[in-house]
Amino acid sequence: MGLKYNKRKIFNDPVYGFITVPYPIVFDIIEHPFFQRLRRIKQLGLTHLVYPGALHTRFHHTLGAMHLTGLAVEELRAKGYEITEAEAVGVTLAILMHDIGHGPFSHALEHSIVSGINHEDLSALFMENLNKEFNGQLDVAIAIFNDRYSKRFLHQLVSSQLDMDRLDYLKRDSFFTGVSEGIVGSDRIIKMLHVVNDDLAVESKGIYSIEKFIVARRIMYWQVYLHKTVLSAEYLLINILKRAKELVENGQELFATPALATFLKRKVVKADFENEPELLAKFAELDDFDVLTSVKVWKHHSDKVLSKLSTFMVDRSLLKIKMYDKAVSEEKLKQLRLKLAELWNISEADSAYFVFTDSIANSAYDLKHDRINILFKNGEVKDLTEAADTLSLSVLSKPVEKHFLCFPAQLINQL
Amino acid sequence: MGLKYNKRKIFNDPVYGFITVPYPIVFDIIEHPFFQRLRRIKQLGLTHLVYPGALHTRFHHTLGAMHLTGLAVEELRAKGYEITEAEAVGVTLAILMHDIGHGPFSHALEHSIVSGINHEDLSALFMENLNKEFNGQLDVAIAIFNDRYSKRFLHQLVSSQLDMDRLDYLKRDSFFTGVSEGIVGSDRIIKMLHVVNDDLAVESKGIYSIEKFIVARRIMYWQVYLHKTVLSAEYLLINILKRAKELVENGQELFATPALATFLKRKVVKADFENEPELLAKFAELDDFDVLTSVKVWKHHSDKVLSKLSTFMVDRSLLKIKMYDKAVSEEKLKQLRLKLAELWNISEADSAYFVFTDSIANSAYDLKHDRINILFKNGEVKDLTEAADTLSLSVLSKPVEKHFLCFPAQLINQL
Amino acid sequence: MGLKYNKRKIFNDPVYGFITVPYPIVFDIIEHPFFQRLRRIKQLGLTHLVYPGALHTRFHHTLGAMHLTGLAVEELRAKGYEITEAEAVGVTLAILMHDIGHGPFSHALEHSIVSGINHEDLSALFMENLNKEFNGQLDVAIAIFNDRYSKRFLHQLVSSQLDMDRLDYLKRDSFFTGVSEGIVGSDRIIKMLHVVNDDLAVESKGIYSIEKFIVARRIMYWQVYLHKTVLSAEYLLINILKRAKELVENGQELFATPALATFLKRKVVKADFENEPELLAKFAELDDFDVLTSVKVWKHHSDKVLSKLSTFMVDRSLLKIKMYDKAVSEEKLKQLRLKLAELWNISEADSAYFVFTDSIANSAYDLKHDRINILFKNGEVKDLTEAADTLSLSVLSKPVEKHFLCFPAQLINQL
Amino acid sequence: MGLKYNKRKIFNDPVYGFITVPYPIVFDIIEHPFFQRLRRIKQLGLTHLVYPGALHTRFHHTLGAMHLTGLAVEELRAKGYEITEAEAVGVTLAILMHDIGHGPFSHALEHSIVSGINHEDLSALFMENLNKEFNGQLDVAIAIFNDRYSKRFLHQLVSSQLDMDRLDYLKRDSFFTGVSEGIVGSDRIIKMLHVVNDDLAVESKGIYSIEKFIVARRIMYWQVYLHKTVLSAEYLLINILKRAKELVENGQELFATPALATFLKRKVVKADFENEPELLAKFAELDDFDVLTSVKVWKHHSDKVLSKLSTFMVDRSLLKIKMYDKAVSEEKLKQLRLKLAELWNISEADSAYFVFTDSIANSAYDLKHDRINILFKNGEVKDLTEAADTLSLSVLSKPVEKHFLCFPAQLINQL
Repeated sequence: MGLKYNKRKIFNDPVYGFITVPYPIVFDIIEHPFFQRLRRIKQLGLTHLVYPGALHTRFHHTLGAMHLTGLAVEELRAKGYEITEAEAVGVTLAILMHDIGHGPFSHALEHSIVSGINHEDLSALFMENLNKEFNGQLDVAIAIFNDRYSKRFLHQLVSSQLDMDRLDYLKRDSFFTGVSEGIVGSDRIIKMLHVVNDDLAVESKGIYSIEKFIVARRIMYWQVYLHKTVLSAEYLLINILKRAKELVENGQELFATPALATFLKRKVVKADFENEPELLAKFAELDDFDVLTSVKVWKHHSDKVLSKLSTFMVDRSLLKIKMYDKAVSEEKLKQLRLKLAELWNISEADSAYFVFTDSIANSAYDLKHDRINILFKNGEVKDLTEAADTLSLSVLSKPVEKHFLCFPAQLINQL
Repeated sequence: MGLKYNKRKIFNDPVYGFITVPYPIVFDIIEHPFFQRLRRIKQLGLTHLVYPGALHTRFHHTLGAMHLTGLAVEELRAKGYEITEAEAVGVTLAILMHDIGHGPFSHALEHSIVSGINHEDLSALFMENLNKEFNGQLDVAIAIFNDRYSKRFLHQLVSSQLDMDRLDYLKRDSFFTGVSEGIVGSDRIIKMLHVVNDDLAVESKGIYSIEKFIVARRIMYWQVYLHKTVLSAEYLLINILKRAKELVENGQELFATPALATFLKRKVVKADFENEPELLAKFAELDDFDVLTSVKVWKHHSDKVLSKLSTFMVDRSLLKIKMYDKAVSEEKLKQLRLKLAELWNISEADSAYFVFTDSIANSAYDLKHDRINILFKNGEVKDLTEAADTLSLSVLSKPVEKHFLCFPAQLINQL
Repeated sequence: MGLKYNKRKIFNDPVYGFITVPYPIVFDIIEHPFFQRLRRIKQLGLTHLVYPGALHTRFHHTLGAMHLTGLAVEELRAKGYEITEAEAVGVTLAILMHDIGHGPFSHALEHSIVSGINHEDLSALFMENLNKEFNGQLDVAIAIFNDRYSKRFLHQLVSSQLDMDRLDYLKRDSFFTGVSEGIVGSDRIIKMLHVVNDDLAVESKGIYSIEKFIVARRIMYWQVYLHKTVLSAEYLLINILKRAKELVENGQELFATPALATFLKRKVVKADFENEPELLAKFAELDDFDVLTSVKVWKHHSDKVLSKLSTFMVDRSLLKIKMYDKAVSEEKLKQLRLKLAELWNISEADSAYFVFTDSIANSAYDLKHDRINILFKNGEVKDLTEAADTLSLSVLSKPVEKHFLCFPAQLINQL
Repeated sequence: MGLKYNKRKIFNDPVYGFITVPYPIVFDIIEHPFFQRLRRIKQLGLTHLVYPGALHTRFHHTLGAMHLTGLAVEELRAKGYEITEAEAVGVTLAILMHDIGHGPFSHALEHSIVSGINHEDLSALFMENLNKEFNGQLDVAIAIFNDRYSKRFLHQLVSSQLDMDRLDYLKRDSFFTGVSEGIVGSDRIIKMLHVVNDDLAVESKGIYSIEKFIVARRIMYWQVYLHKTVLSAEYLLINILKRAKELVENGQELFATPALATFLKRKVVKADFENEPELLAKFAELDDFDVLTSVKVWKHHSDKVLSKLSTFMVDRSLLKIKMYDKAVSEEKLKQLRLKLAELWNISEADSAYFVFTDSIANSAYDLKHDRINILFKNGEVKDLTEAADTLSLSVLSKPVEKHFLCFPAQLINQL
C-alpha cells in the first residue's frame, strides 16, 4: 500500500458521494482544533427554523469546496494549463481555510457584540497562526488567498464570481434546504473552465449554465438566505445579544458560557486580536452552542425584555415580519411601539426590541465588481453581460432593496 | 380487497417513484393500442444523438403529466375548491390523451411528408374515435380538452402557461438528458396553486419558483430542444424524407415499411383523415421504428443523395452546423453549394440537400398569449410580468431568433 | 380559500420534497415547546463525527414519519380498508409523538446520569401531559400508541417491524449520512400494504423489497449506527458524564448549564417524573446544546481525567477502538490500564476511563418478537421467514455480538 | 488549448453527470459505425414493457462502464499500484468494447434464429476487425479482454465478480427502471479497491457494501431481469421469431427488413462469421429496429399464429404467466393446448406457440466460479464467503430455479 495511503482519509458526503483528502498537510489542517470547531458552526445560522434540514456546517461546506477545487485543478491540467504540485496543494489549502475565521451566526454577532471585524480578517489571522505552527507550509496558500500569488487564476478559484466556494454553497444549501430551484450544475461549469490571460474563463457553450447559476443564486437569496422568517429570527437574535450586552454593561448578573462571557463583557476590536494572541484562542472556543445555550437560560432571566425575546427564539414563536417597497415611517414605528408599551406594560425604549425596521439589498450580479469571462471559439473573451444575447443581466445586476417591519403577533391589527 | 383494487395498476417511474392509475376508465385507455403506440414514439425525437439518455417516450411523459394532474386536483380540493369526481376523471383523461395524436419525429414529419395537419388536430380525431368506442365516457374529457367545459381552470391544468404537461416534460426531459439546470420544482408550484375567478393562480410566495420555471424552460430550449447538433440531425431527417418522397413521386423503387409507404406515396391532408377512417388507423401504425428502419435501408439505395444522407444519420456523422445572428446570404449559400457539387460530383440542386440554412425562434414567455396569475395575500391577482419586482420578464419575453447554416465537414474551410 | 387553508403549513424536506401538516391539532402539537425542543436533539447523536452530514434532528424525522403515515392511510383507504377521520388524526398524532420523550444522546445519557427510565416511558408522560392541555383531543392517539385501540393495525403503523418510524429513519439516515446502501424503497413498501385479520400485511410481490429493507437495516447498523468510531465517541461521552457526575457527588465545583445541572446533582428515577410534574418541564429544557456546551467548558477543568476526556471529544481526537469476536480478557485490560496509569501519571482507577471494553449485539430480524406478514394472491398469509424462498432469514435473524476495546493512541503498540 | 483538448468530448449522463472521453483512440472507436450501432440496441430488451423508463442502450451502458474504469484506474494509481499509460488506454478500450458483439434482444435471438454463437465470440470478432483497421492500436486492449495480459487485475476490472461492467449496469438499470432497491454504491466500492498478488481485492471495511452489492444484484434479478412479465414478453418474441423462420423455411412470403431477412433465411453458425467477413458487416446492421418493425408488419400476416403472436407483442397484450416451484406436468400442458386448439380452432402443434413452459435459474453468488477477495488490515486476504461473519453467502449462492407456464388469458380458468 505504501506511504501514499497513510492519510488518505475519505469523508462521506450526501452531496458528492465521497470527498478524498488529497494531501497529508490538508489532513493535518483538518485535524486541527481551529478547523474542527467549524463542525459546531452551522453554515446557514438560523435558517433551519424555516428549512429544518439546513443544519449543515461550515466544516462540511469547506470540505465540499475543497472537493470542487480538486476537480477544477484536474480539469485545467487536462486542458494543458500548468498547475504545479505546490500550487495544487496551495490552492487546496487556501479554499480549505477561506472560512476558518467565521464565528457563530456571523451576521447577528457582527451586529451585536463584536465590531469592526469581519470573518475574512479573522481567517487571515488564523492562517498566519497556523502557518507558524506548520513552519511555513501555508506560504503559497496564504499568497493565493490574499491574491498576491503570481498566477491570478488560482486566487479566482478561491474567490471570484465563479469560485468553488459559491459553487459548493449554492449546491449544498439547495440540497439541505430541499429548495431544488437552487441546484447549480457545478460539474458542467467546472468542465467548461479555461484560463485566458491568467484569468478564469468559461467556454461560450456554457453560457446558459452560467445564466442559470446567477438566477439560482438570486432564487436562493430571496427564497432562503433572505427569507423573511429567517430575517425575523436573525434580528431577534441580534436584539437578544444586544440586550444581554446592555445588561452586562449595566452590571447585571447574567448566565453565559465562558466563551460568550468574554465577548459580552468587553468591546473587542480588530487590533485586540492582533495584540492579544490568546484572544484568538478564546474566539476559537465560541460557537453555535454557546449562543443557543445561553439564550435558553435567558428564558428565565428576570429582565422581562431578555426573557421574552429568548422565549420567542427557543420556542420558535418568532416576531411577525412584513415586507415593504419603501421605508416604514418613523410615525408608524413610534405608534406601534407606544401601543406595545401599553399592551405589555413596558417602556417605549424597550418596545423597540420588539418593533423595529430595517432593509436588505441584493443584486444577483454586480456590474461594478463582478466579471465572468466567456471564452468564444475564436479565442475572443467577453464579459458575460456582453456575451449573453438575451437574458438582460443588466436587469439582474440592479440591486434590489426591500424594507421590513418586525412586530409581535398581537399588533397585527394595528398595521 | 374488493373492487377498488382491480385495475389499480402501478407504473414505476424514475422521476416520481410510482404512478398509480387512478380510475378504471383510465386503465382502459392506457391499454388501448392507440395509446400503447406512444411507447414507440420518443418524446424528444433525435435528441438522444446528443444526450444519450433522452430515449423516454410520449407514453411515459403522458403518465407523468397524469400523475401531476392528480396531485393538483388533490391540492385544489384540499384548499376547498370544488372538483367533482366526474371532473377529476375528465381532467385526468384529458391530460392523458393530450398528445395521443403525435406521430414519430413530429417536427420532421410535418416539414416533409404530411402537410397542413398538426398533432392537436389528430389528438382530437383520436379522442372522438375512442369516445365512440367507450360510449361517451370521454365527453367531459373532450370538453375540458377543447376548453368548452364550464370550469375553465380544468382546461388550464391541461393546457396553459403552467399546465401539467409542461411541468412534467421539463422535469422529465431534464432528468433523462441529465441537464440538471432544467429541473423544475413541480411539487412547489403545485402546492402554490389556487383558483381565482375560474383561473388558475399561484400564491405570491411562489413567484421565485415561477421565475425559475421560466428560466429553466429557456435553458432547456437553448441547451436541449434547439441544441444545434439536434437541429442538424432533425434537418437531416427532413431532407432524407423529402428526398425519399421525391424519389417515390418520380416512380423510383424504395424500401419502406408499409406504414411509412402509405404516407410517402400520397399527399395526405386533414380532410383525408376525416373522410377515411381507416387512414387514422394507418397513421396509428406509424412510429419511430418505421422511420429509422427505412433510413437504415436507404444507406444502400442507388440514389447517391439519399444514400449519403441516410449514412450520415445512421452512423451519426451529422452535418456541421454554425449559428448566426443574421440570415446567411444567398450568394454565400450558392457559393458553398457549387463548391460541394464540384467536390462530390453532384448537381447544384442536389447539393442543397447538404448545404442549407434556416432560422429558429423562441421566447421564454410570450407577452401576447401567456399569462400567469399571481395571487397576493390581500386577494389581488396580477399577471406575473406586473408582479415580479426584479427579473424583467419583458426581457425574457422578447423572441430570440437564430439563423443557422448546415454543411458537410469538407466545406469547413470554405466558410 | 376558506378555513381549510388556515393551518395548512408546509415543511420543506430534502427527503420527500414537501411535508404538509394535515390537521389543525397536528399543527398545534408541532408548535408546542415540548415538540419544538426536538429541533435541538439530533437523531443520530454523535454520528456526525463520522458522517458529517448526519445532523438531522428528531424533529425532522418525526415529520417524515408523519408524512409516510399519511401516505399509508391514503393507500389503505384506496384499497377499501376503513379508517375513519378520527382514526386518521389519531394515528398521525401517535406517530408524531412517538419520540417526544427522547433526551439528548439518549444512549449515553441512559448509561450515565439518568437511570431506569427509557424514552418510551417519557413519551407516554409527555403525551398525557399534552392531552390534559388539549382537553382529551389526544385520547385516540394515546390508545393507538399504547396498542389499546380496537384496530390493531393502526398501532402497527406506529410500532412494528414495518412501522413508518423505521421506514423514515432508515431513509433519512441514509440520506443525510450519504450511505446510499441504506436507501429503503418506502414508497414501494407502502404501495404493497394491506390489512388482514386486523394485521398489516405486505403483498407477496413486495417480498424482495422487504428482504432489501431488512438487509438495508443490517447495513445501516454495522455501517452507521454501530460504526466503531461512533461507538468510541459515544462511550467517551458516557465516561465524561459519569466522571462529571462523580465529581459533583464528591462536592466539586463544575460548570453546567442549569438544565444539565439538575440531572447531574440528583439521581432521578421514573417515579420522580410521575410525582414531580415540574421535573418533566426541566427535562424538556435539556438538549444537545446543554451537553456539548458543558463538555466544551470541561476541557479547562482542573480534574485531569475530565479535562482530557472533554478535550478528546471537542477536538475530535477520539480514543482508538478495536473490534474482537471474543471478550477482551481481564488481564489484558488490567495490563493496559497499568501501562496508561504509568504513562500519564494517573491512578489505575482513573485509567479505566480511557481503557475499557464492552460489547454490542444486533440482529437484523428477530425471530421471537418480529413478524412481517406476507399476503399471497390466494389470500393466504405467511410470516416472511416462511415465505421467502431463498434468502435465509433465519441467518439474518441470528444475533451478532461484537466486542470492542477502547484505548488512547499511545497504547497502540501495547495490544 | 493545445492538442489535448481536441477529442476531449463530454457525454451527458443522468447517472454520473458527465462522462469524459479520455483518449483520442477511444474517441475514434466511439465514432465507428460498429460502436454507434449500440445506440440502437436497448440494454434491457423488452423490459421497458414493465418498467417504461428502461430504454437505455448498450451504447450508454458502455460509456458508463468506461467512466467507472477511469475512476478505478485513478484510485489504484493514487494508492501506488502501477498502471502505465498504455495499460490505462488498453483497459479503457477493453471495457468499451466488451459488449460490442451484442445483437438485438440477445437472449431471444439466440433462442430462435442464430445458433451456437454468443455475444462474447462476436465481440472478439469485432475487436479483431477493428484492430486491423486501427493498425494494431487495440493489441493491449484485446490481450486484457482475453485475460492474456500480464497484469491480471486489469482483466478483472473488465470481467470478474466486481467488474466495472456490473457496477455500471446494476446502477444504470436501477436508475432507469426506478427500482431504487438495486442502487449500488459503486463509488464506495471503487474507493475500497486494492491489488493483492495481481488480483483485485476490497478493503475489509467495504464488506457491507459488497454484501449489499450481491443482494442488490439478487433483487434486480428477480424484480427486473427475470420479472415474470418480462419473461412472458421475451418468450413471446422467441416464438414470433421461431414461427417467422419456420414460415420462411417453408417458402412463405414474409416481410422483413433486409438485415433481418438475411438471418431468417439461412442458418448462421460461428464458422460462417469467421469465413465470410461480409456477414459480420450484415450482423452489424441488425438492431432493435429491424426486429420490432418486422413484428409490427407481421400483425397483418395471413398466418394466424404469427399474426396473433405479433399483435400480442405490439399491443402489449402479453400472455399470462404463472410461476411454479416444480416443473409443469406434460399432461397439464397437453390438456391446456388441446383446450386452446379447440377454442381458437388451431392445431395442437400451433397451440404450443401460446401455451408453453420453461424454467429459469439464478444464484446471486456462484461459489464455484466467483471469488471476491477481501483485504484485511493485517494484509491477509480471504474470499468473501470466509470473511463475511453473518450474512450466509453460502445461502445466497444456492442456485434458485423457478418454473413458469405461459398461456392466453382465455385459459385462466382451466389451470
